[in-house]
Amino acid sequence: MEFKTVRGMRDFLPEKARKKKFIEETCKRIFELYGFEPLETPIVEELSLLTKKGSAGAEIEQELYTFEDKAGRALGLRFDLTVPLARVVASNKQLAMPFKRYQIGRVYRYDRPQAKRYREFTQADVDIIGVSSVLAELELIALSYDVIKALGIEAYLTINSRELLESLALASSVKEEQLAECFRAMDKAEKLGWAAVEKELEEKGINTELLDIVKKNDLNAAEEKIKERKLSTKGLEEIKELMGYLKAQQLSRFVKVDLALARGLDYYTGIVMEIKIASGPSIGGGGRYDKLIGLYSGRELAATGISFGVDRILDTIEDKLPGETKTKVFVTAVSKELTMQALELTQNIRKLGINAEFDLMQRNISKNLEYANKKGIPYAIILGPRELQAKQFKLKNMESGKECLIGLDELEKLREIL
Amino acid sequence: MEFKTVRGMRDFLPEKARKKKFIEETCKRIFELYGFEPLETPIVEELSLLTKKGSAGAEIEQELYTFEDKAGRALGLRFDLTVPLARVVASNKQLAMPFKRYQIGRVYRYDRPQAKRYREFTQADVDIIGVSSVLAELELIALSYDVIKALGIEAYLTINSRELLESLALASSVKEEQLAECFRAMDKAEKLGWAAVEKELEEKGINTELLDIVKKNDLNAAEEKIKERKLSTKGLEEIKELMGYLKAQQLSRFVKVDLALARGLDYYTGIVMEIKIASGPSIGGGGRYDKLIGLYSGRELAATGISFGVDRILDTIEDKLPGETKTKVFVTAVSKELTMQALELTQNIRKLGINAEFDLMQRNISKNLEYANKKGIPYAIILGPRELQAKQFKLKNMESGKECLIGLDELEKLREIL
Repeated sequence: MEFKTVRGMRDFLPEKARKKKFIEETCKRIFELYGFEPLETPIVEELSLLTKKGSAGAEIEQELYTFEDKAGRALGLRFDLTVPLARVVASNKQLAMPFKRYQIGRVYRYDRPQAKRYREFTQADVDIIGVSSVLAELELIALSYDVIKALGIEAYLTINSRELLESLALASSVKEEQLAECFRAMDKAEKLGWAAVEKELEEKGINTELLDIVKKNDLNAAEEKIKERKLSTKGLEEIKELMGYLKAQQLSRFVKVDLALARGLDYYTGIVMEIKIASGPSIGGGGRYDKLIGLYSGRELAATGISFGVDRILDTIEDKLPGETKTKVFVTAVSKELTMQALELTQNIRKLGINAEFDLMQRNISKNLEYANKKGIPYAIILGPRELQAKQFKLKNMESGKECLIGLDELEKLREIL
Repeated sequence: MEFKTVRGMRDFLPEKARKKKFIEETCKRIFELYGFEPLETPIVEELSLLTKKGSAGAEIEQELYTFEDKAGRALGLRFDLTVPLARVVASNKQLAMPFKRYQIGRVYRYDRPQAKRYREFTQADVDIIGVSSVLAELELIALSYDVIKALGIEAYLTINSRELLESLALASSVKEEQLAECFRAMDKAEKLGWAAVEKELEEKGINTELLDIVKKNDLNAAEEKIKERKLSTKGLEEIKELMGYLKAQQLSRFVKVDLALARGLDYYTGIVMEIKIASGPSIGGGGRYDKLIGLYSGRELAATGISFGVDRILDTIEDKLPGETKTKVFVTAVSKELTMQALELTQNIRKLGINAEFDLMQRNISKNLEYANKKGIPYAIILGPRELQAKQFKLKNMESGKECLIGLDELEKLREIL
């Protein structure tokens, strides 16, 4: 019997794991640059938390991994990092506001597995709790710009406002109670096309007039229609305020308003955002969810956040990411009699903070060089009896093949060479 | 309704999360120093993998979190990182040997939750595949010494050999088919005491004569008894060979032979190890499992590894770990009119690679200083109209209260001060 990974999940062998870690570490560095603090929550949560009405919505519920533990507790694997954050904030009233946390962790959705869609995937999230002004969105966008720049990705960010979309939908005769369903349908436009969205809306008895303005992305027409019906212009004003800030921060070229952007989750209340690769898919997204924390505690708190899809980024720019080994040198002795001396040399190199691998299999030199080469280790050290007698060892550049001799008492030299 | 973490699992709020990350990053650094490569595997595995006969053993099976997905697949949450590693090695025949991988990840055991025992916990594992000599154990021990030194822990490492224990047990009239059960019982000695172990062995009809030598930790008596019955001395010889290497590497003071060490998992075949805090509990352990990979592929491969218990380390030395924020400076304007200038200053500070938080809530100075103080941010920058006119800003040391003026064009100075 051959054992495999579970359908929709995958292993990351070293080269891929290094690339994944590079993305995660880049996110972490930028998150900390902006003053975000780490938070870690369990992967397993109470099912009642994950399915709380008003939180993520019906579609997510269908995608949950759920189970009972031996005491009969109804549990589930988290589907995002936002709902657990809301639980933490709701139950830790001592947290100083604003509470800015990051979390990089795995989440689970029982989705139909397709190319580049996984049932276990990693999200890198930043969220700001306690700030109701669009300064929070501005910070998230500036941070997103720095993340994609640091990763070397060509991407842009689209924004929209759930409030704006709500006013527009109401002005287009969508009923109040149909709004969530309407936005969930719209969110599938990119995947399924507008015809499919229109069909879904029709089937659900939702007026499709809204789609005309949305598809054309005509902000002026939207404003006109909302004002005509005397509906709330709050969403529109927030978008304008944010765009003003973005301009002042020289970020407006990075950001586009897109009236078609809805984001599927029910918990969004204000500005929503999505990060898109220039020629392709979404690699992250988020938005404002001012009502979510109140759902779990009765204490409403302004909140907004953005989530980077680590797997999506990895799959999109894998070729460009650094995947080489961090091991700098492979140390081997020409004969077994010199094992202890080679080992001592290796330990002394490690004391300098240089990542070194030692020949544990006691193979011959050609086998060892072949192995070091296959692993992409840039240097090899060969210790032979003659060199040892002269208190030296041979350092070989694996790429150029060049060799030089270094004294056992000049190990510091390695710091510069390696 | 108040939502809580699931029983046996916990949140790590920022200060604790930083300490946990410090442990994980220290492990990672030392693992890479020794040439280990990262590997990541899913948390969810096929149940048949986790319960494979001959692998972990019956006790672990009782502690599994198991469930079915919507397609009726029998799944489980991994209980360690070794079994998934064995699966990866079994099914990736192209891996160059030795395969030295590390993985830091969460595992799940439905244990009775007690003080300092969790149902979700983090392990930091290193394993060496393909090396049958005790050079592999030597490397794991040298690495363990470096990890505990880097963490500032006073600890020592105990070793024993399953083969030695097996010979000794057979010499003490334990039957071949009782060995696994006998070692599982012995493994509980530290938790439950020797009387309980003796009782369990008696109940199971296992001869208890073995315990005399084990409790006394008398290696000479063990050797005598094994030789007397003409049983295999391979385990004994390996221990001696390893101790010789350790002496040559000046590591023998860190390591003690302990005949009572059995380690509960069935998959161990040779030398087993445990890392213990000077005055307390085990913070890690491991050993040789030369038959485990063969269980999943029919291709036997020598293997040995060690696992650090991140939660156990955290709970034991929490007070000594660095938990302060990585944010270096909090930037605030004295009035809302200066928001954009303060924001620009913040972004320029971040461009220098200095972690900076900006006043997103637009509060007054005293509230902001109170917040920065509560969060332990060491410096505050205050931007006022007079300073701005002089192209300067005020930098305040939050601990001493001392203030100084810095020019907007001398930002580089901050690199030295912060």
